[in-house]
Amino acid sequence: MHVKEKTVHSEMIFEGKIINLRVDTVELPNHKLATREIVEHPGAVAVVPVTEDNKIVMVRQYRKPVEDFLLEIPAGKLDKDELPESCARRELEEETGYKAETLKHLLSFYTSPGFSNEILHIYLGQNLTQGKAHPDEDEYISSEGYSLEELMGMIFNGSIMDSKTIIAILATKEYLMRLK
Amino acid sequence: MHVKEKTVHSEMIFEGKIINLRVDTVELPNHKLATREIVEHPGAVAVVPVTEDNKIVMVRQYRKPVEDFLLEIPAGKLDKDELPESCARRELEEETGYKAETLKHLLSFYTSPGFSNEILHIYLGQNLTQGKAHPDEDEYISSEGYSLEELMGMIFNGSIMDSKTIIAILATKEYLMRLK
Repeated sequence: MHVKEKTVHSEMIFEGKIINLRVDTVELPNHKLATREIVEHPGAVAVVPVTEDNKIVMVRQYRKPVEDFLLEIPAGKLDKDELPESCARRELEEETGYKAETLKHLLSFYTSPGFSNEILHIYLGQNLTQGKAHPDEDEYISSEGYSLEELMGMIFNGSIMDSKTIIAILATKEYLMRLK
Repeated sequence: MHVKEKTVHSEMIFEGKIINLRVDTVELPNHKLATREIVEHPGAVAVVPVTEDNKIVMVRQYRKPVEDFLLEIPAGKLDKDELPESCARRELEEETGYKAETLKHLLSFYTSPGFSNEILHIYLGQNLTQGKAHPDEDEYISSEGYSLEELMGMIFNGSIMDSKTIIAILATKEYLMRLK
């Protein structure tokens, strides 16, 4: 039953700034051929930044693919050869101005393994010190603070629609509960 | 601050069986132009099937983009004009053989809104009756039952890496806890 799909042909369709698209032809266990449309992504990191008064710092930005302003935790793509923890510190500071003294890896996951290899690493950021945000030139981001319970409600009433943010909030609640 | 990105040009790069890729040129609030690489996806549905003895029915299948066998909840893409709830019933039966008498919508989310419009709808499936699985010809799927607590452990030890499954399990735990 557990047989890998062997690649018999691979064609690069598009090489972009953020993603590449390739189509692989694979051999199935029944020896038939099938195609797999695969989006290559460099991977990303996201941080749940918890302030001293137990607010979680969220960012809101326009997401063109879904034509909406989404409320998310601070996040960003991995630069080439960048360690996830370094990326977490960099993106948190760029998007919110906060530096986290303590970063704890909570979990990592594939966002959509049916068509993409994007992996996302989630960190809990604590012992924050505030500086000034300095987003990339074409990033328009505003930040807002919410309690964990407020965010839990917003997940179930549809106000938070981003998968990494939903996982990060639910996992943070679970993690803090287990510490008690 | 909250200004939409206006599309000034849109180019379809690839139209596939499952996804399309297009590149939009957008105008930013500072009137500069930027490009957005966008993967169009038909949307998908996933079900947390809970049996009478409180096991959750999981499926394991090879995911070519990440070159691994992932443990996931049953799921599938929406057919054209298909209602999410009908899709949930269809995919659950195809992949596991189970029919769910009760389906409860838990939440919906975007899997990776930075580069894709894929939306995923999660349902809790209860009052199951067992039949025979009949997956698509090129699907090789095996199913396994786990308790909610087993699955919670597997999320945090890295045995479950699929975002929809992590969200669905964490959300199911939260939902059942609120019912108590």
